[in-house]
Amino acid sequence: MSKFWSPLVNDLVPYVPGEQPKVANLVKLNTNESPFGPSPKVIEAIQAELNDSLRLYPDPEGDSLRQTIATYHGVDPQQVFLGNGSDEVLAHIFYGLFQHGEPILFPDVTYSFYPVYCGLYGIDSRQIPLTDDFEIDPADYCGSNGGVIFPNPNAPTGRYLALTHIEKILDANPDRVVVVDEAYIDFGGTSAITLVDRYPNLLVTQTLSKSRALAGLRVGFAVGHPDLIEALNRVKNSFNSYPLDRLALAGAKAAYEDESWFRECCQSVITERQRVTQALEQQGFEVLPSMANFVLTRHPDKSGDYLASGLREKGIIVRHFNKPRISEHLRITIGTASQNDALIDGLSSL
Amino acid sequence: MSKFWSPLVNDLVPYVPGEQPKVANLVKLNTNESPFGPSPKVIEAIQAELNDSLRLYPDPEGDSLRQTIATYHGVDPQQVFLGNGSDEVLAHIFYGLFQHGEPILFPDVTYSFYPVYCGLYGIDSRQIPLTDDFEIDPADYCGSNGGVIFPNPNAPTGRYLALTHIEKILDANPDRVVVVDEAYIDFGGTSAITLVDRYPNLLVTQTLSKSRALAGLRVGFAVGHPDLIEALNRVKNSFNSYPLDRLALAGAKAAYEDESWFRECCQSVITERQRVTQALEQQGFEVLPSMANFVLTRHPDKSGDYLASGLREKGIIVRHFNKPRISEHLRITIGTASQNDALIDGLSSL
Repeated sequence: MSKFWSPLVNDLVPYVPGEQPKVANLVKLNTNESPFGPSPKVIEAIQAELNDSLRLYPDPEGDSLRQTIATYHGVDPQQVFLGNGSDEVLAHIFYGLFQHGEPILFPDVTYSFYPVYCGLYGIDSRQIPLTDDFEIDPADYCGSNGGVIFPNPNAPTGRYLALTHIEKILDANPDRVVVVDEAYIDFGGTSAITLVDRYPNLLVTQTLSKSRALAGLRVGFAVGHPDLIEALNRVKNSFNSYPLDRLALAGAKAAYEDESWFRECCQSVITERQRVTQALEQQGFEVLPSMANFVLTRHPDKSGDYLASGLREKGIIVRHFNKPRISEHLRITIGTASQNDALIDGLSSL
Repeated sequence: MSKFWSPLVNDLVPYVPGEQPKVANLVKLNTNESPFGPSPKVIEAIQAELNDSLRLYPDPEGDSLRQTIATYHGVDPQQVFLGNGSDEVLAHIFYGLFQHGEPILFPDVTYSFYPVYCGLYGIDSRQIPLTDDFEIDPADYCGSNGGVIFPNPNAPTGRYLALTHIEKILDANPDRVVVVDEAYIDFGGTSAITLVDRYPNLLVTQTLSKSRALAGLRVGFAVGHPDLIEALNRVKNSFNSYPLDRLALAGAKAAYEDESWFRECCQSVITERQRVTQALEQQGFEVLPSMANFVLTRHPDKSGDYLASGLREKGIIVRHFNKPRISEHLRITIGTASQNDALIDGLSSL
């Protein structure tokens, strides 16, 4: 601790992202990136912006991209908030919508950035245990609280919660914001964006880092009632006027203009997810039913640590969390068919 | 106000950036962008990254860019912190280094984002009047405080404070962080980065938005003692792991690899600044001596509002602040020779 630090800095426990290895030729199945590159239209659109206009600030409100996303999802641009990846969007949500002097609620096994935001902003939280099958039970999210947040599908479990169950949580919390973090919604789920016009307390976040194959470009967004978006805009405009650069704005917009590419990539992931699941089950692994671009799996006789290290030695990296309830599991991103073959072969020899 | 908002949101007064007009063919002298495009090497470097690798997350620590900036400034990479524009860097500084229960100090006429950060994080401040000549007097920054921040050259005045004066402020505040915001340092000033190894309380911020012609790419950084950088890293890693995208990291790095382009652009701005200053003075304007890529000027008989509106009608936009002490001034970005000609002609006919 330094005398120069704001006291809160001393207690911060930062988020630890999955490794971004600088070694080439690894089979990288650890951070849920798309195994396919972005649409060629994305590359073209960025190319068209790659000129002297970089000397000029971007549009601080990202109007054109907001309009595109709004049209795509059938909402008004005033219901869309853009951020530098959905992580930045989430940070602004915690600051601007979750400080009500009561603990916010999220699952015990979930995206590990949530408790970090709580630490950053001094927000109390209560972690609600998932069921024994790693499912969210809506009845657990009905008490007094400062807000509710969960991913759907949940990460790192991959388990999906049907919209009818989400509506139960929304109905039980009319005075609090319920955030559905849909980073992985495009791999088989139905977006809760279809509910925002009926629930002023619903905020849905999405990212272009997974199904749109643009983790390298840093674009995420939230959709909800204009009142909720206004809070996020106030926080954002008190923090950084221009979080999205000109190239990111152009590339993200183009990602929505190639629907067939998008559908094909998502479908390939879904098909491969099924194949990987079956192959792992044949090897004796237990695999949680996943609606995401990853699976959470464990072997009854082989430890998570042993399997992760063994794969690493073969040049295959997956995510292993040293955390309660999932310390014996591996979270494995669905890759290309050949990456998945390498994974299946690798595990069979351990 | 909405019942869903964190109470602090209600009182936020966001920063208002200079207009980014969507009309073409304006002479845009309102946001201190570079009149020249970025180095061709920047375009090439981004081009080389514009491929399927966009599906992958960027390096969260931006090691390669940090190394480049460190080498350029003769410091260690551990003394460099990167952000999504220097505005994001400043936000993390206010949160991580300025919360000590005492008011922080900054000039009364300065970058108008500083009071906004204070509002966002509930930090008290005391605004220290500039002298009648709009200069910073180091003696005014010596009392008890929670930290000190000022731009050098100051904005929107353009006035430069010599390093010997900055050392007086550093010497007077051994227990508080002194931030020198050097957004405009490359247009004639000497960077305080040369002092960081002697002053553990000094943090210097810079941006690639002005002299490096990359406002559209959103890259800024801070240089200081590793203890100060550690605080910023803790905050950043509790907020957003990957604030710089792959293209921004590549482009920013290349900007440091074309020194001759950089020097020529800065020199052109300096030469034109001199010419604009003389031409305005010949028209009866008072022009503050500027070491930035803009000038602050007023006419004894014509109001700032009248002049700004009159220029606007001619398709020339400059910045006019409706604020105490500078409400009759215009802040005019130095443009290309022909843009500056248009400005000089435009003003002469008002």
